[in-house]
Amino acid sequence: MTNITAPPRKFQGIAVLDHKDWKNPKKVEFESKNLYDYDVEVKIECCGVCGSDIHTASGHWGETKKPLVVGHEIIGTVTQIGSQCNELKVGDRVGIGAQVFSCLECDRCKSDNEPYCPKTVNTYRKDYTDGYNSKGGYADYIRLHEHFAVPIPENIPSHLAAPLMCGGVTAFSPLLRNGCGPGKKVGIMGIGGIGHMGLIFAKAMGAETFAISRSSAKKEDAIKMGADHFIATKEEPDWATKYFDTFDLIVVCSNSLTDIDFNVVPRTMKVGGKIVSICVPEQHEVMNLKPFGLIGVSISNSALGGINEIKQMLDLVSKKNLKIWVETIPISEKGVKEVFERMEKGDVRYRFTLTDYDKEFSK
Amino acid sequence: MTNITAPPRKFQGIAVLDHKDWKNPKKVEFESKNLYDYDVEVKIECCGVCGSDIHTASGHWGETKKPLVVGHEIIGTVTQIGSQCNELKVGDRVGIGAQVFSCLECDRCKSDNEPYCPKTVNTYRKDYTDGYNSKGGYADYIRLHEHFAVPIPENIPSHLAAPLMCGGVTAFSPLLRNGCGPGKKVGIMGIGGIGHMGLIFAKAMGAETFAISRSSAKKEDAIKMGADHFIATKEEPDWATKYFDTFDLIVVCSNSLTDIDFNVVPRTMKVGGKIVSICVPEQHEVMNLKPFGLIGVSISNSALGGINEIKQMLDLVSKKNLKIWVETIPISEKGVKEVFERMEKGDVRYRFTLTDYDKEFSK
Repeated sequence: MTNITAPPRKFQGIAVLDHKDWKNPKKVEFESKNLYDYDVEVKIECCGVCGSDIHTASGHWGETKKPLVVGHEIIGTVTQIGSQCNELKVGDRVGIGAQVFSCLECDRCKSDNEPYCPKTVNTYRKDYTDGYNSKGGYADYIRLHEHFAVPIPENIPSHLAAPLMCGGVTAFSPLLRNGCGPGKKVGIMGIGGIGHMGLIFAKAMGAETFAISRSSAKKEDAIKMGADHFIATKEEPDWATKYFDTFDLIVVCSNSLTDIDFNVVPRTMKVGGKIVSICVPEQHEVMNLKPFGLIGVSISNSALGGINEIKQMLDLVSKKNLKIWVETIPISEKGVKEVFERMEKGDVRYRFTLTDYDKEFSK
Repeated sequence: MTNITAPPRKFQGIAVLDHKDWKNPKKVEFESKNLYDYDVEVKIECCGVCGSDIHTASGHWGETKKPLVVGHEIIGTVTQIGSQCNELKVGDRVGIGAQVFSCLECDRCKSDNEPYCPKTVNTYRKDYTDGYNSKGGYADYIRLHEHFAVPIPENIPSHLAAPLMCGGVTAFSPLLRNGCGPGKKVGIMGIGGIGHMGLIFAKAMGAETFAISRSSAKKEDAIKMGADHFIATKEEPDWATKYFDTFDLIVVCSNSLTDIDFNVVPRTMKVGGKIVSICVPEQHEVMNLKPFGLIGVSISNSALGGINEIKQMLDLVSKKNLKIWVETIPISEKGVKEVFERMEKGDVRYRFTLTDYDKEFSK
């Protein structure tokens, strides 16, 4: 952790104080972490709302320390830097995703796989080695290792940049790592917050894109986002036969896996095709795979993306001027309550960003 | 199927006539298939014994037409060719694996993925489009499309070439397709008939090799075969922690998956690591995968290998003068009974080849 540049101070946030009452978050003051020599302090401008926030706030992913301040799609401005920082300076606009620390020394860190480092600290709910329990972006400030605060290209508005930091790179990483590009047929299964970004990226990367959804309710939207084809699986029960031998890659972006028959999906894949799920479902869910079903097809689960991938994604979004679909809601106890309730119902097209931090947190 | 060069004639074989009495196979005469213009007729010299033979003979993979003549690791000599054959000539020594037909026109066939062609006919128990039920290598002759009869390099003895044709390429294909080579750490899980060939190939391809077995009973053998390391999972219950972040590739060569915890094995993999199973277990077996367990790791099932891969494997075996471990047994009702019984008990180190065809089938 190196040395301390500045001691803790008071931050403010909208926090869950009890999982039983998670839909009534409260405004609280809390102690920040130390500003270590490689840390920066960031004044938060806005924060995207991720499915993980809801899984964590509700307690579905287990107990947490309180106050629980979620939020890991953060955009803000650097206000203070540690004495050893050399990547960022005060005034830089940066984005912060779901990870705020890793060792930066192991093979995984050195190969742009920071999210897979065993010493990873996630942006909220996790203990640092000094005992501090990390707190996220539904707050006025955050302190973190500068490596995990990424400069945002000028032409991306903050409220559209925020959801890229976790949801965006979670969709982008499996596309990048599995050869999405011209000549490839890529399916995005589940057109929600992450899936809609996956569709936009896959199209921008040059692939022939297939939106795969249960019903055709989102067909029009999906085509606007960049889907070349739309498949409604519940309306075409025999879709896997129709699309036999079609896909090079399917990225599964659904909230839950229970509705997906992984003994059917592989039929639609080319030999050597890859099914990558980014779903982090309820802990008890399993995939009941029959080995015969997976012949010639691989399945894997992907987690976030490394910092280098975040930079590549931001570069793509900036250069192609991509626009994700975001609804903004001002942060406050009421605003967070509203996003929690609507996220639980799936009532969002397609991603929330909490905004107006200055109004809520200026005294 | 094109035109017929020669009509059916009588072949002889050692056949299962009733799954209930599968361990008492009988010598029978049966009608051959037509010799179509692209077919060759091969006089069989020897045939390896594959786990599939036992699964099929016993009826564990379902009912079959009778007489059932199994065997798909065949070495023999071409005795007749169809009028349109242009790859082989009478007198060529060839090997035949688990596939005797595919369309050769689809994208899969054209990309060296014949085993994944929907029109595949397996070497035994499958119906051709003309209605003929395919019959395998526990017989004096076989007829098949010349594409699936592969010339055997001179320096590979027939009894050592036979097991390569199915078991060998089944081990070789996932190694080849997943980058086995210098600088890679490759685990072979399950040191049986196929696994022992996987170990020999992985070493010959230049990887750092790890034999992964339940007990250390096969340790000495595995090291002779080319294992740089040996892991006995039942004797080191915490092996997955010890080998955290180790493997680029694990090829699962076990007979059954029920004993393997696929929520533990991924911990030993590098990010982007690949677990490939070649196991074709009892039909009811499933892999109960928790999605969290597969983060950063892919799993797939591999089937056989294409003809081009068989040729590459034979080239490697020939050039490096590799020797697989084979026990020979003369073919006869008694000989087949013996291999069935011993295969069922796992009493083979490490592969059987049925030999002395001339003695059994000359009249």
